[in-house]
Amino acid sequence: MKTLVICSGGLDSVTLAHKVAAEQSLTRLVSFDYGQRHRKELDSARACAVRLGVPHDIVDISPVGRLLTGSALTSGEAVPEGHYAEDTMRVTVVPNRNAIMLTIAFGVAAAGQAEAVAAAVHGGDHFIYPDCRPDFVNAFEAMQRHALEGLARIALYTPFVRQGKADIVGEGARLGVPFAETWSCYQGGERHCGRCGTCVERREAFHLAAVNDPTLYEDPDYWIGACREHQAKQPS
Amino acid sequence: MKTLVICSGGLDSVTLAHKVAAEQSLTRLVSFDYGQRHRKELDSARACAVRLGVPHDIVDISPVGRLLTGSALTSGEAVPEGHYAEDTMRVTVVPNRNAIMLTIAFGVAAAGQAEAVAAAVHGGDHFIYPDCRPDFVNAFEAMQRHALEGLARIALYTPFVRQGKADIVGEGARLGVPFAETWSCYQGGERHCGRCGTCVERREAFHLAAVNDPTLYEDPDYWIGACREHQAKQPS
Repeated sequence: MKTLVICSGGLDSVTLAHKVAAEQSLTRLVSFDYGQRHRKELDSARACAVRLGVPHDIVDISPVGRLLTGSALTSGEAVPEGHYAEDTMRVTVVPNRNAIMLTIAFGVAAAGQAEAVAAAVHGGDHFIYPDCRPDFVNAFEAMQRHALEGLARIALYTPFVRQGKADIVGEGARLGVPFAETWSCYQGGERHCGRCGTCVERREAFHLAAVNDPTLYEDPDYWIGACREHQAKQPS
Repeated sequence: MKTLVICSGGLDSVTLAHKVAAEQSLTRLVSFDYGQRHRKELDSARACAVRLGVPHDIVDISPVGRLLTGSALTSGEAVPEGHYAEDTMRVTVVPNRNAIMLTIAFGVAAAGQAEAVAAAVHGGDHFIYPDCRPDFVNAFEAMQRHALEGLARIALYTPFVRQGKADIVGEGARLGVPFAETWSCYQGGERHCGRCGTCVERREAFHLAAVNDPTLYEDPDYWIGACREHQAKQPS
């Protein structure tokens, strides 16, 4: 099945690209530039496309990103530190981002005769991201069946939707994904900061998966306290 | 209900903007620049926003348009002439265009605390556009409920979805829409060409609605033959 992978350059979507390349016919990677603070992720996506020998499109939707203000990912707000599942992470929500990227990817797939779009949405404890949940994925696929009826039949492949990030790390390790060549950090420093939500989540996922983390962090031990603090707040 | 209207500057969406302004709280117009051959439509959308006294965003998604190749609206292909419902019009289909514009509009609405997005999708004889049908509209709204769950509750308002273009002309006439300040033609000439699918459809709609058409056409009588030819091909 000819499959296009939406690849941000992060750990999840790079692992997905390797998984699709191993399982079926990977035809192309598509990344989105929505006015991120830095381009480290996009550089990592490009390296992945080169490694897997497929074309790579970076779709510039930064004018859209500018309209979707109020998010720390695209605006001037400070990136919050701590565990991903905390209320403070709500500022990292770009409203409707997954739906926007998916509809564009489906258009690209239809134009290029691909049969599936793969996306690395996953659950974990991301309850604050409604567009990462199975109900959203099912409703999205139903919508696309209607939108492209008679023009194209394109599946939505989200193998990680019921998995946590630790499962993805485990899968990536089996597939031989070069994790050091993926980028998760919200900051665009020389190394991963180790303190933002996605760094904490990344480091925790390697720990839970019992996989060696090759990432260089500025603050390699911050995650332990952040995770403990988060766990202490959970209802027992 | 605070409502954002997707306005291309064509007859349908300008009529919709006037309808929303008359019925509820029109808060903003959003247009999309997807690399159209000309900007006449966008100029007409801007004039509509000025007339109705609301802000106007033109979202540049031309990098997306370039990827969705194979359409006469964005590529170098010749614009076909004749009746809209003919097979030749298939080249005017930009795959997934409505879904892409709608997801972006829902993101803008969520970021700006609007309560509804209005779009001028309509049926008529546009069977070649699956993303103009009621089933698509219902599936899209369901998808958005999941995508924005807990973040925003935004309705999709498509009052024309079960109507033909003649009904829209009738509605516009009742609302006093200045039709001469709307643009339908696929070509970007001084006047409407009168020969492309959307010119033929526009002229026919005024005829069917028994409303005077103030549009200046280069070829004002071409539509009659195109419509007769189309009718002759219909199963009796």
